[in-house]
Parts: sequence; C-alpha cells; structure tokens
Amino acid sequence: MAERTASSPRGRRRGSPDTRSAILAAARTSFAAKGFAGTTIRAVAAQAGVDAALVHHYFGTKDELFLAALEIPVDPRVLIGPAVAGPIEEAAERFLRIFLSVWDDPDMRPSLVAVARGIMDPSASRLLSEGVLPVVIQPIGVALGIDHPEHRMPLVASQVIGLILLRYVLAVEPLASMPADQLVATYAPTIQRYLTGDLP
Amino acid sequence: MAERTASSPRGRRRGSPDTRSAILAAARTSFAAKGFAGTTIRAVAAQAGVDAALVHHYFGTKDELFLAALEIPVDPRVLIGPAVAGPIEEAAERFLRIFLSVWDDPDMRPSLVAVARGIMDPSASRLLSEGVLPVVIQPIGVALGIDHPEHRMPLVASQVIGLILLRYVLAVEPLASMPADQLVATYAPTIQRYLTGDLP
Repeated sequence: MAERTASSPRGRRRGSPDTRSAILAAARTSFAAKGFAGTTIRAVAAQAGVDAALVHHYFGTKDELFLAALEIPVDPRVLIGPAVAGPIEEAAERFLRIFLSVWDDPDMRPSLVAVARGIMDPSASRLLSEGVLPVVIQPIGVALGIDHPEHRMPLVASQVIGLILLRYVLAVEPLASMPADQLVATYAPTIQRYLTGDLP
Repeated sequence: MAERTASSPRGRRRGSPDTRSAILAAARTSFAAKGFAGTTIRAVAAQAGVDAALVHHYFGTKDELFLAALEIPVDPRVLIGPAVAGPIEEAAERFLRIFLSVWDDPDMRPSLVAVARGIMDPSASRLLSEGVLPVVIQPIGVALGIDHPEHRMPLVASQVIGLILLRYVLAVEPLASMPADQLVATYAPTIQRYLTGDLP
C-alpha cells in the first residue's frame, strides 16, 4: 500500500528529509528484525550513516523513534489523557470511543491499517510484544492505575486487535459497517472486565 | 503440500497423488484470489486440467474442497458435536476447551498457525469473510441454535482470532504460556456473552 506519504515531513531542520528518511528506514528494519529491546539508537544511527546525536535530535527517545518508525498518524500517548479522565468503571467505554473516532477517520485509516498489518506480520513478531505493548498499550493501563497491567493489557490487546483485523483489515461484516455506538456497547463490557474485573 | 512429489504429472489417472495435488493447488489459488463465493468447482477443475466430476470424486462439495485447501489438520465440523452437547449457557467453556486442546497439540500447531496466517493475510481477505466464517464458524452457531448467528459468530471470531494471533502466532506473554484452564476462565465469559448474552 502507498500510505507512506500521508504526513509529509514539514520543513527542513538540521539535515535533509533524506537523512530523516534514512534514519526511519534503518529504525524500521531494526525494530522488525531485532525487536524493540534489541534495537539501539546507536545501531540505527550507524546503519543510517549518521551520528547518534542526530537521531536523538530528530526523534528524541527510543520510544519516540519507535512510534515514528511505526508511522502511526497520531501519537497514541496523547489519547491516553481523555481515556483516563473519568470514572474507572467507564474507562473501557471512553477508550473505545476514542479508539473508534481515530480509526474511523478516513484520513487516518490507511496509515493505521498499514501499521496493523506490520504488527500482525509474523516475521516481525516482536514489534507487538516488545514494542507496541510496552510503549503504546501498557502505558494506558498504568495511567488508568489498574492492577497488573502487564497481565490485563495483553487481554485487552487480544480483543482490540481481533476487532481491528476483522473490521478494518479484512472488512468482515457485520463488524465492518457497524456504527460506533453499537461497537462501543458490544465491546465495552469485554474490555472493562479485562481492565478491572475479577480474572482467574 | 506434503504430498507433492518430484515425479512428473501422469495425466488424469484416477487416484494419482499428483492429480489430487494439482486440484488442491488450483483450489488454493482460486480461494485466495477470488474468495469462496467466486470459486467454482468447474473453474478449479479446468485450472487443474481435470474433469469437474473428478474434483467432486476426490473432495465432495465446495465446502469440503475449501477445508481441504486450507489444510486444516482436523475437520472443524467434527469438533462441533462435543461443543454443542450440553447446556447452552456453558457452550463457550466447552468450545474453548476443545479449541485449546486442538491448538495446544504440538502436532497440530504448525499447520494451524500456517492456516491462521493465510486467513489473516490481507491479500486473501475474502478467505475469512467468504470461506472460514460461513463454512467453519457460522455452523457452530447454527448447531448451537443461537439466534442471529450471522451477527454473533463474527463477534466470537473477533475474540478468538485475536487470541490465536497473540498466543500462537506472535507468542505474546502472558498469553503464550497461560495454562488452558486459566485461558478458559478468562475468555469463556466474553465468548458466552457474544453467543447468548444481551447485545445492542
């Protein structure tokens, strides 16, 4: 898919867009091949033929480089705030509303589907377990203050990723055209139980 | 794919493993490219260079050809019986136990993971919506006698496929090494609600 240029890099800071692209390409290759833990800023810089300081300058921390390499069109950490604000027993509903508003946005959809495909690709299996889970998904549980987020958030992920796959990637009916309100009412009880319910 | 041999094709001899492989290869190509609905026995036969009657002779109906082409190591329809026998309010628990006993079998796992990858591949997106759902998943709901299986079974699929992806394909912890009993207790309430609960 040609999702690559959905958000074109605006303005040249120190260095050309080519340098930025080269760093991102090196980061993507490394995260896919070696996972999040096995990737270092230094190695990415070496692969891209630039200084490690330049990688930090462009992308900040390794978490941020990872998010940039995923090319998620929104920073998922920005969405945590609204999901967290409010009663904990309605957290799943708020999360699903925010999640669906982003995914159902036609401008966002193609890049998000591309990200989802990358995450689900078995050849890059550590992207999810070592990258997306600790950097994107676990922080939601931590911000919510639930107990054992490392146990509960993968359960949440198992339902949300299944929904993403059927509704957005494979377009399986009735999920593909189900209104957001109905999806929220369908899935919120499941997600809420995984977040805060009694579990074995 | 195991039965493909290096020997040269021997024409239309009945019972030839080569003929059987040629039919399966043609079926796989067609199901992946045209989906279940777009595939005909006649077209598969033509592609394989055999008579349609021979396809029926080897594989029976199009449903059965589809299951053979998927190379699922067990006929999922055989598993429906035990899942259906018993109180409807415990159907999810029985289903999950049978499902996990098959998937956790080390002899079965590699072929099942291969099937799952094929189903989740966006380039063959109709395999799920037009093949696996109507041929494998919907019949479970019909056999259980639930109302609106065409609405409820895709919800079941959205959770089970997410679990398959995280536990078996991507090996995400703690799901990858969670004991079957704990998985059943974790997921049965979700599946049971999708099968028989009040839904919007």
